[in-house]
Amino acid sequence: MSNTPVLTVDTAAIVANWQLLKARHAGSETAAVVKADAYGLGVKPVAHALATAGCTRFFVATLAEAVELRSCLDVAHIAVFQGILKGEEADYVHHRLIPVMNTVQQLQTWKAVCDYETSALPAAIHVDTAMQRLGLTAREMQRGDVLELARSLKADMLMTHYACASDAYHPLNGIQRDAMQRVSRMLPHLTTCFANSSAHFLDASYHGEITRPGCALYGITPLDENSLNPMYSVVTLTAPILQVRCIDEMGTIGYCATTHVQPPMRTVTVGIGYADGISRQASNQLYAYLEDYRLPLLGRVTMDMLCFDVTHVPESIVESAKTVTLMDTRQTVDDMARMTHTIGYEVLTSLGKRVQRKYV
Amino acid sequence: MSNTPVLTVDTAAIVANWQLLKARHAGSETAAVVKADAYGLGVKPVAHALATAGCTRFFVATLAEAVELRSCLDVAHIAVFQGILKGEEADYVHHRLIPVMNTVQQLQTWKAVCDYETSALPAAIHVDTAMQRLGLTAREMQRGDVLELARSLKADMLMTHYACASDAYHPLNGIQRDAMQRVSRMLPHLTTCFANSSAHFLDASYHGEITRPGCALYGITPLDENSLNPMYSVVTLTAPILQVRCIDEMGTIGYCATTHVQPPMRTVTVGIGYADGISRQASNQLYAYLEDYRLPLLGRVTMDMLCFDVTHVPESIVESAKTVTLMDTRQTVDDMARMTHTIGYEVLTSLGKRVQRKYV
Repeated sequence: MSNTPVLTVDTAAIVANWQLLKARHAGSETAAVVKADAYGLGVKPVAHALATAGCTRFFVATLAEAVELRSCLDVAHIAVFQGILKGEEADYVHHRLIPVMNTVQQLQTWKAVCDYETSALPAAIHVDTAMQRLGLTAREMQRGDVLELARSLKADMLMTHYACASDAYHPLNGIQRDAMQRVSRMLPHLTTCFANSSAHFLDASYHGEITRPGCALYGITPLDENSLNPMYSVVTLTAPILQVRCIDEMGTIGYCATTHVQPPMRTVTVGIGYADGISRQASNQLYAYLEDYRLPLLGRVTMDMLCFDVTHVPESIVESAKTVTLMDTRQTVDDMARMTHTIGYEVLTSLGKRVQRKYV
Repeated sequence: MSNTPVLTVDTAAIVANWQLLKARHAGSETAAVVKADAYGLGVKPVAHALATAGCTRFFVATLAEAVELRSCLDVAHIAVFQGILKGEEADYVHHRLIPVMNTVQQLQTWKAVCDYETSALPAAIHVDTAMQRLGLTAREMQRGDVLELARSLKADMLMTHYACASDAYHPLNGIQRDAMQRVSRMLPHLTTCFANSSAHFLDASYHGEITRPGCALYGITPLDENSLNPMYSVVTLTAPILQVRCIDEMGTIGYCATTHVQPPMRTVTVGIGYADGISRQASNQLYAYLEDYRLPLLGRVTMDMLCFDVTHVPESIVESAKTVTLMDTRQTVDDMARMTHTIGYEVLTSLGKRVQRKYV
């Protein structure tokens, strides 16, 4: 049953990207964000490769993701962005997870847990400085009772999240950094953790002591669209050829008859579609590659199949081919994102479960 | 660990939709298309509900899907659209699957398998009449050797796939039907299987003896956008509230600071994002519902979170709420599709694996 789409993940490239970012960061530590199943690439092999390379701290979005990660990494620090919700306390303690404190109430809850366990369990404090999404406000951090709570916890990280770090000149970057420096002066026992992938490319004052890259580990550009992507390519996506067709009559291809064919034409039908994460918005834009030949997509992306033009490819090459390539250095994750009006993150997290993941 | 998004699937509504389509079809049988994990809803519970209601024939896209389905349905007919690829023969025989013959070569392969097994194993013959995707051409079906092969097989279905059936007035519908009637007269021992969901709403001459609805079973409209959806609603999507925020300072929400806030404002941050299948294209368009209150989305869809405006909702309701609703009859799958420039099929198949499926 090998006739499925295959995403080949180069874990050595992920490690090389992590080392490249680490080299840009003079602080004490570079962590790794592996939420959403390591952006769709598969959290266990990715985390294993990074841990082997020396990464000791990981971030995930949810408790369920943290529990899954703990099952393969026994000693790493695992922090959970979503914060601790009602009824989750015992799971955090049992799996030795670091909850990110996003509210005063969560600080109180965790204090109570620590008192009950008679142990200063680590926690991170997240201060919101622009996102308005999760986190305590800078104003809350000035309250005496909140500071006292924060000081009483073994809170090993003080975090914020940049809203515009991929735009090096955005004024919010400096505003957020300055706000966090003020909070940090009130809580000097906490290790600061500010930088996402993009902020590694701002000067060191934006980093904090621990950085936590995500997208750039997976080869997505951390820079704006006018800059060359400094990261190594990580993924290759291939899909099986299901049928070669010779078209010798006038007609149309695909749903709603949007694309006309000009016989004589040869096409390949490939077993991947939007149910596998190839956005319908790529219709009439996407290319596939067969050896060095570039194949234009014909017609719409359907649920399970795509059709490509191979009229210009020598017949012997088409006949012996088993797969075509949809993503690699020639058509990158960021290229796919541009043609489907989104960002590389969504391209990767959309890849479906029928896509087999292989690791090299 | 219940703080995840939840997709509640009303299997009784799926059965009611199947019966509604069955009632529109005077022929011998109505099957069900359950490919792509029953369009993301979960193939095992969906197929089980339909089988209990009397459905005995199912269609999937790939061999892997067929093997999964066979593991929960021992006696049903299971046909595989993708057709039999090299090396898959033994799996088809072992799991008693019906391969869809898409090429002359596949006819020859299956004939050889039947000879080897000394048994006339069932197969379907797919004739392409407009899609140019998979299937034999009408011209190939006129060849003497092909007809002889087709007659020698215990081929229980003769299939085609309409390209434009949701547009009742599209001329291709009649062209495709007429082409299939010609093929059918040459192979009268085969049971015809033509109609997808939409073709149930064309006159009976378009149906064939067996119909095979997909999208309409799951509540997606089988009609054009100017017609009322005749199907029952099947899915409800909810997501957990992670934090309630009071905004009392001017500022922006979310990445790239695209949305300005007007204090005083209250928001909820909800634990679902594009990694769960909420397209980024829904940014600044989507609504959530809290009781009867409609909550506008603020800012962009992020990987794991959405922010909604609850300023107009009584504080007591917000404080006691645990979840918001993102899809039901008020904001349907088709509504989500319109706002994200796609079709309902892609909305459902995009729902990610962090979304817990519940069945009622």
